[in-house]
Amino acid sequence: MRTIDWAGDAIEMIDQTSLPDRLEVLRITTVAGLVEAIRRLAVRGAPALGVAGALGVALAARTGESIDALRAARPTAVNLAWGVDQAAARLPDAEAALKRALEIRDADIAACVAMGVRGADLVETFAERPVRVMTICNTGGLAAVERGTALGVVQTLHERGRLAEALALETRPLLQGARLTTWELARMGARHRLVADSAGPFLLARGHADVVLTGADRIAANGDTANKIGTYALALGARRAGVPFVVVAPESTIDAGTSSGDKIEIEDRGAGEVVTIRGVQVAPEGTRALNPAFDVTPRDLITAIVTEDRVWRPR
Amino acid sequence: MRTIDWAGDAIEMIDQTSLPDRLEVLRITTVAGLVEAIRRLAVRGAPALGVAGALGVALAARTGESIDALRAARPTAVNLAWGVDQAAARLPDAEAALKRALEIRDADIAACVAMGVRGADLVETFAERPVRVMTICNTGGLAAVERGTALGVVQTLHERGRLAEALALETRPLLQGARLTTWELARMGARHRLVADSAGPFLLARGHADVVLTGADRIAANGDTANKIGTYALALGARRAGVPFVVVAPESTIDAGTSSGDKIEIEDRGAGEVVTIRGVQVAPEGTRALNPAFDVTPRDLITAIVTEDRVWRPR
Repeated sequence: MRTIDWAGDAIEMIDQTSLPDRLEVLRITTVAGLVEAIRRLAVRGAPALGVAGALGVALAARTGESIDALRAARPTAVNLAWGVDQAAARLPDAEAALKRALEIRDADIAACVAMGVRGADLVETFAERPVRVMTICNTGGLAAVERGTALGVVQTLHERGRLAEALALETRPLLQGARLTTWELARMGARHRLVADSAGPFLLARGHADVVLTGADRIAANGDTANKIGTYALALGARRAGVPFVVVAPESTIDAGTSSGDKIEIEDRGAGEVVTIRGVQVAPEGTRALNPAFDVTPRDLITAIVTEDRVWRPR
Repeated sequence: MRTIDWAGDAIEMIDQTSLPDRLEVLRITTVAGLVEAIRRLAVRGAPALGVAGALGVALAARTGESIDALRAARPTAVNLAWGVDQAAARLPDAEAALKRALEIRDADIAACVAMGVRGADLVETFAERPVRVMTICNTGGLAAVERGTALGVVQTLHERGRLAEALALETRPLLQGARLTTWELARMGARHRLVADSAGPFLLARGHADVVLTGADRIAANGDTANKIGTYALALGARRAGVPFVVVAPESTIDAGTSSGDKIEIEDRGAGEVVTIRGVQVAPEGTRALNPAFDVTPRDLITAIVTEDRVWRPR
């Protein structure tokens, strides 16, 4: 099953806000509907957003809508704008734009397979025995088209019989780890446990994992990496514990136009996500919040960045 | 209003599991009832647990119950066992045991005032302007009898007009920061914002706070400090950002019999707290979890430990 795909004259996608309670497929026929789905995170994950952006241009070529709002729907996710630009370069030829979008979809599927192999090969060099992996957010098939980035490496290790356990951080505020990663790990039959985000660095200090694997939303030219909030704290914990910290992301995530991490704009998603959890109020009414959706991990904390083409050691 | 107190022939305490929705006072007349209240965190916080332990001995002297289960109700909290032992040393004289428990209560009130003054004096040396404080868990009046430890310092700074803002980490899994600390900060009229735990280290990196203030559940003889899970990650973030990291706790938290932090037993509170949030399921049914309630911050990451008697720089 694909997370996002083209279905003749519309985009079909799994509505990730309904997981793990229900598996629902959305059918999207307008750019406005796609922007809304992206903003409420019905589709998320850097590679999936790249495909969504490209397919959105194919929709726009049919409906006549502008693609400006689509390009800007998630400011930190470089893949979204990249996907839009790739398909838009073929306009006004609607069929050529669609063809380019489908190429991006197919390339993502192939890239995730390649990242899984390359990443698992690297991780196998860290330990003789089956490994215990810690990961954050959701970087599985749900973040891409068919297989994932960091969780694709976990899946490859599992298929090779080299995965002892995956520790999934729950990933507040939106709980992508608790809701989505555990769901994917259970479907693949991999042994796993869920962990509160703040426990990650301490569990590394106490020797509970052999490697940290994360995705990336944007990688600056120098290797500084923007990813889900909490990634930076894990990188600090991995460094202190002497545990390898590996980023897994497609080449399209690397933004040559951004020289370093301090230039990356960090989206603040407002108080609602922090003050309520899945509709339940957890703080007094009217409480204000600071809610950065991403953080930046400096390259000196990154052991390696694995892409479909290479293993890059930026420090 | 006191968080916990003696009411003639029973213990009265605010039920912290009902906050911030409702302010409810429990009346407890048996040791068994007290153990249950401690285990479900109706009363929590190192100083309050010390008073609860001592008052529990006074209850036991009336009911004839054993105090063994009381002493062991929260294994990481040294103050609980300390309070039990202090009052138990006066047994079988029930009145003397109660008198000792009330002395501990009154000493806690005085100690929190002293910690507030000493801690605020120290924090004022870090910055000329009103300060922005980051804190975790609840270390306010609800964690003690009348005023708190780390949040007592925040309160003193606020009363002096030297608090610019408090950033409260929500403190998964039980959300003491979201539920209790925001409630106390709102009652004292202090400007504050709520933050997901995993954002703490990154917000320090981006310059959002001038100091981190935390409590402690147990301090080893060498200064290594056990506190709410997430404290260690904040300490790593503070060190990297060059922000002072200050522990505020009474002398009774220092455990001379534990030489270093690696000797401290860490309570695992089970999967339930991680897999559900305030009664709402957030992960697939049957998901396993790893749920350490505390972590240990090595002394080399601690700028200072402030007690009612001194400022200790353990590194």
